[in-house]
Amino acid sequence: MSNVEFHFDFGSPNAYLSHLVLPEIERRTGATFDYVPVLLGGVFKLTNNRSPAETNAGILNKPEYERLEMERFVRRHGITDFQRNPFFPVNTLMLMRGALAASQLGVFERYVGEMFRHMWAQPKKMDDPDILRAALIESGFDAAQIFEAAQSETVKRQLIENTKHSVDRGTFGSPTFFVSSDIFFGKDRLADVEYAIGQSRTPAAFV
Amino acid sequence: MSNVEFHFDFGSPNAYLSHLVLPEIERRTGATFDYVPVLLGGVFKLTNNRSPAETNAGILNKPEYERLEMERFVRRHGITDFQRNPFFPVNTLMLMRGALAASQLGVFERYVGEMFRHMWAQPKKMDDPDILRAALIESGFDAAQIFEAAQSETVKRQLIENTKHSVDRGTFGSPTFFVSSDIFFGKDRLADVEYAIGQSRTPAAFV
Repeated sequence: MSNVEFHFDFGSPNAYLSHLVLPEIERRTGATFDYVPVLLGGVFKLTNNRSPAETNAGILNKPEYERLEMERFVRRHGITDFQRNPFFPVNTLMLMRGALAASQLGVFERYVGEMFRHMWAQPKKMDDPDILRAALIESGFDAAQIFEAAQSETVKRQLIENTKHSVDRGTFGSPTFFVSSDIFFGKDRLADVEYAIGQSRTPAAFV
Repeated sequence: MSNVEFHFDFGSPNAYLSHLVLPEIERRTGATFDYVPVLLGGVFKLTNNRSPAETNAGILNKPEYERLEMERFVRRHGITDFQRNPFFPVNTLMLMRGALAASQLGVFERYVGEMFRHMWAQPKKMDDPDILRAALIESGFDAAQIFEAAQSETVKRQLIENTKHSVDRGTFGSPTFFVSSDIFFGKDRLADVEYAIGQSRTPAAFV
């Protein structure tokens, strides 16, 4: 079976909403998404792109429409634990380095779920170090340990590498998905992602 | 059954690609799309929006991705008669006024099909009056008659009214679809449009 990847940044509400839906796709397809932390701010710098919040500002109807499509997505998937983060946009540098630290410490999956929750289910100002620390502790992590690992050169370099490599493969925003080398952008492509996974699977008889 | 509307401008390749796919949706749902001519340039002015060609310029990966998604759409729907218009962007004021003139003259549907063809299947510089005239004649229309009707105050006013009314209902780009008052933007929402039509139909037993 081909690689199925989810390139994410905790700062993106659409990454969070996708994260909530990926388990359904995994169940239906048998695939497992490889979660790849990338720094969205870095993606924007490398591609000269900006966030929809910035580019849609001052445009009539478009922000309202995107909000409507977000509500439709939430309703369609029966999502009950989503709230806009009043501190948006949140600088996610520490959070994303933390994800790589959590990976080193063997707690990646739980860290991802918890940090998404602290951003978009019980939203907090997660770029405030004190609030981040309190959230880590509330979630049962060793905050000091994660903070320390997040400051290591290895982690810093890895986040830059992940981000550059993702952009080299075509990323310009979040969320981005890959099925092998095929790129899909946005939560509204998840049906296409699922279809692509189905197309790329080796038939059982040939495994 | 509810109103199902397609708000279009010939200048939008995604409106053309949608136009090619609408018959499939009409066949499956039994609905008929009401084609509403709007001036995309007017929509942009009223909403302070710009074309993707403008906003994506200078951004790495994003234009390439949109091209890829266009190719996927074309392949998925087996579309063989689409070519980029080398004169893009084409000023569509005369073409769109012509659509309302054609409506007055009882040749609206054929005019729409032919003008889309002259824009995106055998693409021409359709904002050049001589080329527009030649295209109308090639398609078997009375060019002088359409030109004259297109200059009438009624037609000019109607295009402005259509455009304003569409923006009042939430439009900010092309193509836009309405199922009753529910708005959908972009060719990639056609599956949602089709679903919404299905949801809004009066069950046969109650007709």
